[in-house]
Amino acid sequence: MRDFSQDHRWLSINTATVRKQRGEPWPLPKILDACAARGIRAVSPWRDQVAAAGLAATAAQVKALGLELSGYCRGGLFTYTDSASQQAVRDDNLRALDEACTLDAPCLVLVVGALPGALAGRPAHRDLALARAQVAEGIAWLVGEARQRGMPLAIEPLHPMYAADRACVNTLAQALDLCEALDPAAGYAASGSSARPALGVAVDAYHVWWDPQLEAQIARAGRGPANRILALHVCDWLVPTTDLLEDRGMMGDGVIDLPRLRGWVEATGYAGYSEVEIFSKANWWQRDGGEVLDTCIERHRRCV
Amino acid sequence: MRDFSQDHRWLSINTATVRKQRGEPWPLPKILDACAARGIRAVSPWRDQVAAAGLAATAAQVKALGLELSGYCRGGLFTYTDSASQQAVRDDNLRALDEACTLDAPCLVLVVGALPGALAGRPAHRDLALARAQVAEGIAWLVGEARQRGMPLAIEPLHPMYAADRACVNTLAQALDLCEALDPAAGYAASGSSARPALGVAVDAYHVWWDPQLEAQIARAGRGPANRILALHVCDWLVPTTDLLEDRGMMGDGVIDLPRLRGWVEATGYAGYSEVEIFSKANWWQRDGGEVLDTCIERHRRCV
Repeated sequence: MRDFSQDHRWLSINTATVRKQRGEPWPLPKILDACAARGIRAVSPWRDQVAAAGLAATAAQVKALGLELSGYCRGGLFTYTDSASQQAVRDDNLRALDEACTLDAPCLVLVVGALPGALAGRPAHRDLALARAQVAEGIAWLVGEARQRGMPLAIEPLHPMYAADRACVNTLAQALDLCEALDPAAGYAASGSSARPALGVAVDAYHVWWDPQLEAQIARAGRGPANRILALHVCDWLVPTTDLLEDRGMMGDGVIDLPRLRGWVEATGYAGYSEVEIFSKANWWQRDGGEVLDTCIERHRRCV
Repeated sequence: MRDFSQDHRWLSINTATVRKQRGEPWPLPKILDACAARGIRAVSPWRDQVAAAGLAATAAQVKALGLELSGYCRGGLFTYTDSASQQAVRDDNLRALDEACTLDAPCLVLVVGALPGALAGRPAHRDLALARAQVAEGIAWLVGEARQRGMPLAIEPLHPMYAADRACVNTLAQALDLCEALDPAAGYAASGSSARPALGVAVDAYHVWWDPQLEAQIARAGRGPANRILALHVCDWLVPTTDLLEDRGMMGDGVIDLPRLRGWVEATGYAGYSEVEIFSKANWWQRDGGEVLDTCIERHRRCV
């Protein structure tokens, strides 16, 4: 297991972590500058932030600053109610794929979607099995497009508390079942030299830490022809947690045994970034973004 | 699958559903009277409510009203930090078992506990595997006591969002693994005539509805020498859910496909009560208890 205590070379910042600062929300160019200024080598930006800053401009800034991406947030949201909404989903995922290519991301992260309309409080139905079937169908289609572009897809299982409205893939086992069914050879068609699969997973500690099968499923992810783990996200689970979405904790402030989890992930051969992703309405988004980044660096060295 | 649409003979009320009414919180004797007056045949009371009303008085009232219990809430909370706290846990569980016997409950429901101290916001450690080991050890001990008393234990897997502070048994698979390990013969020692196992599960729709393994695990529960399903709890998952603990929905107001779930449960041979348990700070606890009970009856017939 790598020693993180001496430097922060393996720290990446998911740009949502400092996007909603009170008083002065940070636009993406400012976030990128602030990361580079601190020797943070990688980021994972969100599509709406990139759109606001401009895709070409963002790609140029990332390159000029010597940054790289640890992932691109996000594709997915595959569920639909009719053929028009299905087509809209597909079109949007193609745009996301192309943006990920332009930004030279290592993977497009997929938040797969759940009951159509639920996120807006108006679920079209209660058929979770149907939603899961549509997700499998959507990924099956997108992975073909992804292979053509040489851009791996990382299915991110979300915590079961998001099963209704954000993602109906809720365990690592379920995500790996999809990977093995839809990309059995772990085949990364575009670039024969890469060991990355076309379809893998993003392991976010916040979403999976509770899972009694976690250690076994992480090991399973590393057992195939290519390691399925394409990204590792960290933050912490607070007690109490006061909001289902925006009360994530800074590493070390909660109950997740992050070093143990990272040890399991690295035992698969994973040697990529540890990406900090914190949505924190009442705490970290209330602070100066520079203080948040400095804290991420310190906690990355001490608590991850 | 039983037809619930014509009457409410299989409705049970978990007494937490109407315990915190605004203005006039309902004590247990009033709840029992109000249920009996509506032809509700069963209840599942909480220990603190029984303690407030008196154990003997409650047993007498239940009998006089012709009610029965669908479960007794609750034992468990097995995790500890030292031998003194371990002993206190054991003593308390013995009292819970004896109360369940006095009340002639069909089972003692177990909410197994999680990281010690976490419920009070001061987790003693981050070792979820240790907590799970202590839970297994505690159940292994308690099931011996339960067998002597002829009182089955029902492990209730709680939603993963409670893994830190309330219960580190979070899936039906995990609960059934414990049942099979600790009560392999499904042996209900005290009463040879009963088909109930010494150790089973309480299936609460709110906690398990999201689980991709749900159908398969419910079937597994019915496959052994005795059906492990000792209780079925229903309410609904709202979108959005605004509180992790006290924003449960009335059946029909959320996204859980309750008839489908009940069908899976009844396919195991389960023929017991459907117990409504709703914690609802902002909605149902704000209404008159009689209105809540009437709504439970109507929704039980139409949505479960």
